[in-house]
Formats: sequence, structure tokens, C-alpha cells
Amino acid sequence: MEQFVTPLHELTLSQAAAAIREREISPVELVEALLRRIEATDRTLQAWAYVARDEALRAAKEAERDVAAGAATSSVLGVPFAAKDIFDTAGIPTEAGSEHYRGRVPQIDSAPIARLKQAGAILLGKVHTTEFADGHPAPSRNPYNLDHTPGGSSAGSAAAVAARMVPMALGSQTIGSVLRPASFCGVVGFKPTFGRVNRNGVIPMAETLDHVGWMTHTVEDAALVLQALAGYDASDPHLVDVPVEDYAGAVNRPASPRIGLLHYHFDRADETVRKSTLAALERLERAGAMVDEVPLDVDFDATFRAHRTLQVVEMASWHGSQGLLEHMEKYQSQTREYLERGLAAKGVDYYEARALQAATRVQFRRRLREVDVLVSPTTSAPANPLSDHSTGDPAWQSPWSLIGFPSITLPVGQTPEELPVGIQLGASAWQEARLLSVAKWVEDALDVHLPLPAIS
Amino acid sequence: MEQFVTPLHELTLSQAAAAIREREISPVELVEALLRRIEATDRTLQAWAYVARDEALRAAKEAERDVAAGAATSSVLGVPFAAKDIFDTAGIPTEAGSEHYRGRVPQIDSAPIARLKQAGAILLGKVHTTEFADGHPAPSRNPYNLDHTPGGSSAGSAAAVAARMVPMALGSQTIGSVLRPASFCGVVGFKPTFGRVNRNGVIPMAETLDHVGWMTHTVEDAALVLQALAGYDASDPHLVDVPVEDYAGAVNRPASPRIGLLHYHFDRADETVRKSTLAALERLERAGAMVDEVPLDVDFDATFRAHRTLQVVEMASWHGSQGLLEHMEKYQSQTREYLERGLAAKGVDYYEARALQAATRVQFRRRLREVDVLVSPTTSAPANPLSDHSTGDPAWQSPWSLIGFPSITLPVGQTPEELPVGIQLGASAWQEARLLSVAKWVEDALDVHLPLPAIS
Repeated sequence: MEQFVTPLHELTLSQAAAAIREREISPVELVEALLRRIEATDRTLQAWAYVARDEALRAAKEAERDVAAGAATSSVLGVPFAAKDIFDTAGIPTEAGSEHYRGRVPQIDSAPIARLKQAGAILLGKVHTTEFADGHPAPSRNPYNLDHTPGGSSAGSAAAVAARMVPMALGSQTIGSVLRPASFCGVVGFKPTFGRVNRNGVIPMAETLDHVGWMTHTVEDAALVLQALAGYDASDPHLVDVPVEDYAGAVNRPASPRIGLLHYHFDRADETVRKSTLAALERLERAGAMVDEVPLDVDFDATFRAHRTLQVVEMASWHGSQGLLEHMEKYQSQTREYLERGLAAKGVDYYEARALQAATRVQFRRRLREVDVLVSPTTSAPANPLSDHSTGDPAWQSPWSLIGFPSITLPVGQTPEELPVGIQLGASAWQEARLLSVAKWVEDALDVHLPLPAIS
Repeated sequence: MEQFVTPLHELTLSQAAAAIREREISPVELVEALLRRIEATDRTLQAWAYVARDEALRAAKEAERDVAAGAATSSVLGVPFAAKDIFDTAGIPTEAGSEHYRGRVPQIDSAPIARLKQAGAILLGKVHTTEFADGHPAPSRNPYNLDHTPGGSSAGSAAAVAARMVPMALGSQTIGSVLRPASFCGVVGFKPTFGRVNRNGVIPMAETLDHVGWMTHTVEDAALVLQALAGYDASDPHLVDVPVEDYAGAVNRPASPRIGLLHYHFDRADETVRKSTLAALERLERAGAMVDEVPLDVDFDATFRAHRTLQVVEMASWHGSQGLLEHMEKYQSQTREYLERGLAAKGVDYYEARALQAATRVQFRRRLREVDVLVSPTTSAPANPLSDHSTGDPAWQSPWSLIGFPSITLPVGQTPEELPVGIQLGASAWQEARLLSVAKWVEDALDVHLPLPAIS
């Protein structure tokens, strides 16, 4: 077998998949390399809730046999991945970062896990989430600066991918929980349209807002994961039967885009973030993109309050349905506060939040007829210092989750403290192919390659 | 001009339209005949809130000129219609049956009124609604038995059409407010899919549930009205951009249908209603329809409670937004009770009602892949005696309004007290063409012609 100059743990998802397909490396070697990387760095980073060493090695041997037998090759065959600890995994603990679920081991894989396994991907283990994917921080640290948060709620997903412990990790986003940590950790974070990916077996936060999303190193990798996960299934009442497109193909046809600059509290951004975003947009214009300011008749303070109302009410409903509210003492204070707010909220407030959500969707849809994507900084500021009550401000990722349209973040640079900064691109509902194609063009035009984090 | 054997006021919408188009009658003659009919019967029936005599005669003269000039002939040119008193009408009072709106005269026509006028139809006036289209009865009486209610909330619409004071009347349905009064009064009542007809300028009850609907004498007439009113318009955020079909054509192609019998509390129906429905289904089977019982995994008591929760919360929100809650003394007690329930409702209850609505939609959609329509009695019993607090039980019309799928009621017979009985047919979302085609087949197969009501 050919000797790789790149250490195996640094391979991106598509590099790893290609090398496995071409039998240049074995899935077993790759899993072993990642296990070594986890051993070397995770004591510091604390990204992992459970490393499924034995199960992963067994699956890798099977994948090895499949490759040798020339079995049906999917684009993720033999590639290891991690899943946020709210995805049910058969025989492997799934605790959602909660005292309530300490020691809980599901019998059945959640739908996304089952789909990835069926495509030959290898579950390497579970990564930390904030408590029930809401505000109370996970123990994980930011690989680029250990004194800072990796963000949340998909904290372990972002840290594990950024630190090259795994080339892809599943997360979830109800407000900003995929794109914010991805941006804080300098990786690509993507969430598809609400209703695109089956969420059966994923522990909910807010059923009408929860999106499955993922972290990777490249836009192409994000597209490969979507290709594996997209698809209608009548068993999830929130799924919509919209045709799946050729996402992998879309990133091979990057096209110079029409970009709308979303004037979303831009003036409130941290200076580094504002400068990095403007510099990135200049580079994109020079590369041939059309960039225009796009006025939106949306009060983003009001939409964020509405988003929070929907979240806390649906959270309270689900926790109530599970009987968990009978043990309020098992929640961390931030979760308890959300649940109390949810229980106290008025029907009229919930309804008015839904009405504002519908009106906001109309505004975005209208503007997204004029441009391919709307762009903004992903976060108002780089990752904040570690704290025991916050993983950062989700306001800037919120609109795309509230309206359920697809969004993606790409790294654009770093602050003097080496903290990554990202830009966020969003497209209209079901336009993932267009979004990924534009994101690939942007990725190529920006040509940003953050240095590997120096984890001591 | 040819002499009609049928008195002009007894013409159906399509008969009137054809006679006008062929210049056999003039719109002015028709309006005059209807005004005479109103004068003769409305003191007894109290269907009308405002008869727009002068405006209608002016519009009739214009229509007469248009016909004479051979101007673009729409299928409703020169045909008079009435509108429930929640449809804003420029220069004509619109009071919603409420003390709050006594003397209110809008400046602008609501969207459905504007569309019909543009197609050459003639607004003959406004018909009574229950207070704000909710529970407190209108003054109207049932033309078939003056001691009984015409139903509600579109009370005047049903009474006016049944009594041949106008061939078509617009109503609205949030729970059962078109199909119940239509059934109680022995006419055809139809509501399209939620999101099909622009509701701008129609005073809302519950924004996510309100449907514009209408009463006519035949299925063909219902189709002609839909043809005039269907169509996307970005100004109503609840409208969905789904292609408009050839509804008028659909009723010319009636097809022997697959009918599912909806086992919806069938055993709780009044005996006359149950017998009439079963007799009608037998006739349909003999005529060639496939009739099967269709089990649905739906708890209709729970869906009705959810429906009520959504209604009262959205009602409270809208009335609050209009500043009307500052004068609670201006409401009738039933309305006040709904508003108080709406204000007191929890966010969690509202959300869970929305979740049940979504799950119910999935169940219905699944069954409606196996059959063309689901059929049930329209109401559990014939029109109840006049009362100062109720216009009858809306539970049986509720599911179609809750899920937003189209439904239609046709008369199947009368009780010994001469009160009409109807059956209700519903189809999947956006399948109005199929529903109307099946309803036309059912209408032909049943061949029911109720005698004219004897109004003394």
C-alpha cells in the first residue's frame, strides 16, 4: 500500500473514502489512526462522551471485507464518523449530557445513524453535547484556544472534527447549534432544509425547529453526507417529500454566484468579525461574484425572541411527555430555566411566534428569488472564554433555523488569538444543491486553510 | 326575450350565467327579481344584514352593457351573490355581527369580493354571521323550519341561498361554519384547501384555520366559484403557490369513485342522519361506486379539543391585536368565553394541538391515497331548534378544517320535520378537481331534489 504523506487522521472525508475505495488504505488502519489521535488529544479537549473502540474496529473489518469483495461502494464506505450524544445508537450509551439519562443505552439506532451505517460508514463513538442540546455547556474545549468554548450545543462534534479526531461528526441545530460551534472551531458546518433528514431516534429539543446537521472539513464532504442522509420517509411526520438532488455533483459545478449581504446587526459585530467578513466579500467580488446589500423587512430582535419562545414551549412539552419534569432537580439551572419559561408561556405568545416565523419565511423567500444566497458573519464574535453558563450567542444563526432554510458556515480567517472566524451562507428552502455549489465556489475563491490547531 | 318557466329567483348560478350570456335574461331583471324575493321572505328569515339595492342595480346595468358589447364573458358575469358580513366591502357596511363594528364601512373590498366583481359578478349585499363568525347565533332562521337554526356561523349565507334570495353566497369555515349551515339548509356547501383562496380583507377568526367557502345549489356552481377565486397571491402569507386546475371542466367529467366511509362517531349520529347516509351510500354502490370502511388512527374527540384550542388562542391574539379586548362588555357571552379561554391557554397546549393537527393530516393523507374521497354524515343531527347560545355541533365538519383539506356537503334527504340532511365528502390537499368531479358524480347518482322551502 502506498505511503501517505498526510497523516491518516488528517484526511478529509472524501480523501479517506477515495483512499479506501482505491485500497490505498484500509478502514482498519484509519480507525486505528483516529483512536490514537483521540488518545493523544482528548484528555485535553474532552470532545468524546464514549469512544466505541471495539464496535468501530469490528465495523472497520467488515468494511475492509466489503472493499476487498468489491461490494457496492457508497461514497462514505469505510469512513469513520462521530455523533452528538443525542443520536440514539444501538448498544452504545446515549445520555444527552443529562443526569436523567446517565447509563441509558438505546436498543435501536436513530435514523441518521442507521442510514450512515447502511452506507458503510463507521460509528467511532459519541461526542459531547450541552445538556439536552440546550444552554448548559459541555466539558469540551476549543482546539484553537483551550481557554475558549468550542461553542454549543454540538460542542464535541466541532471540537472532534477541528482536532482531526474524526473527519465528520453529526450534530443538531435548533437555533445555532451546528453553525456556531463549527465557526468557533474553524470547520465547515451545514444544516439542510427542515424536513429533509429523518430525525427518528434523535432526542428532540423542539420538534418543529430541530435540524440534523454536520461538521466536516470541506463543502464537498458536507455534500457527501447530505447525499447519504436525504430522503423521504413517512415515519417522520415532519419530513417533506421533495426530490433529492445530486449534491455530490453540485459541488463539482461551482458557479459564480449572486450574493446578498444580509444586513443583520452587522454594526453590532465584533471588529475582527466585521473586517474578516468584509475582506472575504471583497475577495469574492474580485473573483467574479455579484455582491449586493439586501434590505429585509425583518426585526431580528423580534424573530430571535419568537425563536426562543417556540424552543422553550416545545422543550417543556417534550420533557413533560417523557415524565422528566417530575425530577427537576436533575436538570442544570439553564435547562431548568428554559423549562420553567416554557411551562409558563401563553398560548397567544406561542401562536404569535409561529405567525412571525411564517412572515419571516415569506421575506426571506422573496429576497432569495433575487440572489442565490444570503451571506452574513456566522457569529457576532469569535468563541468566547469558557463559561459555566453559555456557549456563545446564537442570534446570528437563528434566522435560518427559525425559517428552516438550509445554511452553511465556512472559515474565513483567524483572530490574533488564533480563534477562527466564519461566514454563513443561506439559501431558499430545498435549494441545498444550489447552496452547496455556491459554497464550493466561495471555498475555492477564498482559499482559506487554517493551520492545524496546536493542541498541547 | 324568452319567457322562463322557472321564476328568475330560482335559477342556479350556472343557469343564470348561461341565460345572461345568451341574452335570454338581463342582469337587471335578475337583480330586480331577487330584490323582490328578499322583500317577500327576509322579514321572516332575517338572512340579510344589508341589501345593497342601489349598488347592485348599478352593477347590473354595467354587466348588461358588457354583455351587449360582447365584452369578455366570465362564467359568473352578471350573476348576483351575497357575502357573509365578515368580508370587507368597499362603501358597504361590514359589521361581523358585532357591537364593536356597528356602523363600520370599509374603504376597500376584501380579495374574494374584488375577484368576483372583477369577473363581473354582482354583490347583492351582506348576509348575517354569528358574532365574529363564532358561536353567538345570528338572527337568521332555517327556511325549511322557522323554529330551527340555519346553523352557523355562515347563517345568512345558507338561509339566503336555500330560500332562493340569491344563487350563491360566500361564507367562511374555521371549524364547521360553511358545511354545517349548508347541510342544515339543504344546499351545497364547499370549502377549498387551506391556502387556496386569498383571504385579505376577510375579518379573521383564527388565521391558520379560516377558510373562505360558499353555498350554491349545485356542485357545478361550486366549481365555477372556485375557478373565479383560486389563485396565488404573495400578499397573503398563508396562500400556497399550487397550480389552479380546470374545476369547471372537472365537473363535466364525473367519474365513478372509490369512496371511503369515515367511521367518525357514526354510532353517535341521530337515527335519521344515520339511515339517510347509509341509504345514500347504498344508492352510490348500486350506481357503481366502490364503498369501503376506512379505519383511521385518529381520536376525533382529541382532534376536536385541539381544534378548539387553536381557535380560541388565535382568536384572542387577533382581537388583542385590534385593541378590542379593552371593551369586553361589547362581546356576547359566548365570544367572551372563547376569548377568555384563549387568553388563559398555555403555550404547551397550543403547541400540542398543532402537533396533533400535523399527525392527523398524515393519517388522512395516507388513507386518501387509497380512496378518492372520505365520506361521512355532514352533521350528527339535523338543524337544532333556535337557541340563544348555539348553532349546532361542529364536531363532524371539524377534521377537514383542522387539516385544511377540501370538503363539500350535498343534500341527501329530509327528516319527517322537513329538515334537510347532508353528506360530507372530503379529499386530499389540493385535490379540489377530483373532489368536485366525484361530488358531481354523487349528485347525479343520488338525484336528490329537495322541495322549495315553504316560507310563510
